[in-house]
Amino acid sequence: MHYPKTIQNLIECFKKIPGIGEKTAERYALAILNLDQDVINLFSSSILNTKTKIKRCSICNNLSEDDICEICKNKNRNKDLLCVVEDPKSIILFEKIGTFDGYYHVINGLISPLDGVNPEDIEIDKLIDRIKNDNIKEVILAVKPSIEGETTALYISKLLKPTDVIVTKIAHGVPLGTDIDYVDSLTLELALENRKEV
Amino acid sequence: MHYPKTIQNLIECFKKIPGIGEKTAERYALAILNLDQDVINLFSSSILNTKTKIKRCSICNNLSEDDICEICKNKNRNKDLLCVVEDPKSIILFEKIGTFDGYYHVINGLISPLDGVNPEDIEIDKLIDRIKNDNIKEVILAVKPSIEGETTALYISKLLKPTDVIVTKIAHGVPLGTDIDYVDSLTLELALENRKEV
Repeated sequence: MHYPKTIQNLIECFKKIPGIGEKTAERYALAILNLDQDVINLFSSSILNTKTKIKRCSICNNLSEDDICEICKNKNRNKDLLCVVEDPKSIILFEKIGTFDGYYHVINGLISPLDGVNPEDIEIDKLIDRIKNDNIKEVILAVKPSIEGETTALYISKLLKPTDVIVTKIAHGVPLGTDIDYVDSLTLELALENRKEV
Repeated sequence: MHYPKTIQNLIECFKKIPGIGEKTAERYALAILNLDQDVINLFSSSILNTKTKIKRCSICNNLSEDDICEICKNKNRNKDLLCVVEDPKSIILFEKIGTFDGYYHVINGLISPLDGVNPEDIEIDKLIDRIKNDNIKEVILAVKPSIEGETTALYISKLLKPTDVIVTKIAHGVPLGTDIDYVDSLTLELALENRKEV
């Protein structure tokens, strides 16, 4: 005996989301049964709309319902700064800080030859063209501190070497509020290397 | 800056599911973007169908797409046994063991005067009527081992005292304080085997 087909389908759909297993999917599907009708309607239509309404901003690749995203539409931001991030989620994080007022560019992934991800796959050309055309003064690389992140950062900085564009990278070190004991040695090594005079 | 409205809505919907917080909701909503069109369609319609297609079986309260659920429709099961569970999820768990071949009855909750849940609220009358009308020989109570569970079990057994119906309870192989959902099938099977008269 199984759940009715509708619930069984719902469980299968939840399981398609990375990180959701059988038990969790079951719990979520049953929880859906207890939601109000208006939440159900919004939930159902929002899921459907992700495919039809959500596009990538034609300038920066950020998620957007229009051809150009809210940030690229805003002409009052600092035109000199461009922050390169891995995914649209990072933009939200930086916007929450509220101190960065430049523009963003989303490269969808990092160069990783072992996984078959080459510079063309993440459209590095589009990024370089934009930097040159928009007269960007500083490109801030805010990518994951990993081998792929370093490779991508190096590749981009090499391509921009002949220009006057300054390429920077966000600092890596011990996060605030974290005990030094809990930081991995590579991070600690970086933190030591990049020490600053008090 | 926020996510586009569709994604923002989706995040809010995910947050309505108990146990899903802001960060997890965000992760799930973004994961939906990467699902295939056919999964998206099924996901969306399944959620909508939970309200329209899923009913409660008119005999046992189990989840069903028809007026009467698959188990109650099955005339080849043991008519002498009735297993009383708290929610439809428990039925799936017992069916997975495969050794119980009686029928089920779902009472939606447990008697808990402190929370204002009285016998009427969980339709104990309907259960008692069914037991008498269907000539059930043994009622197996498979409810949470908690004060509310004990209260409910006692209440039911008291109502059935004047009859010949044997009232049993699944054994305390289920650890106290643990939800039936989280017990492995073997423990649940043992608990079923070692049921005791109340």
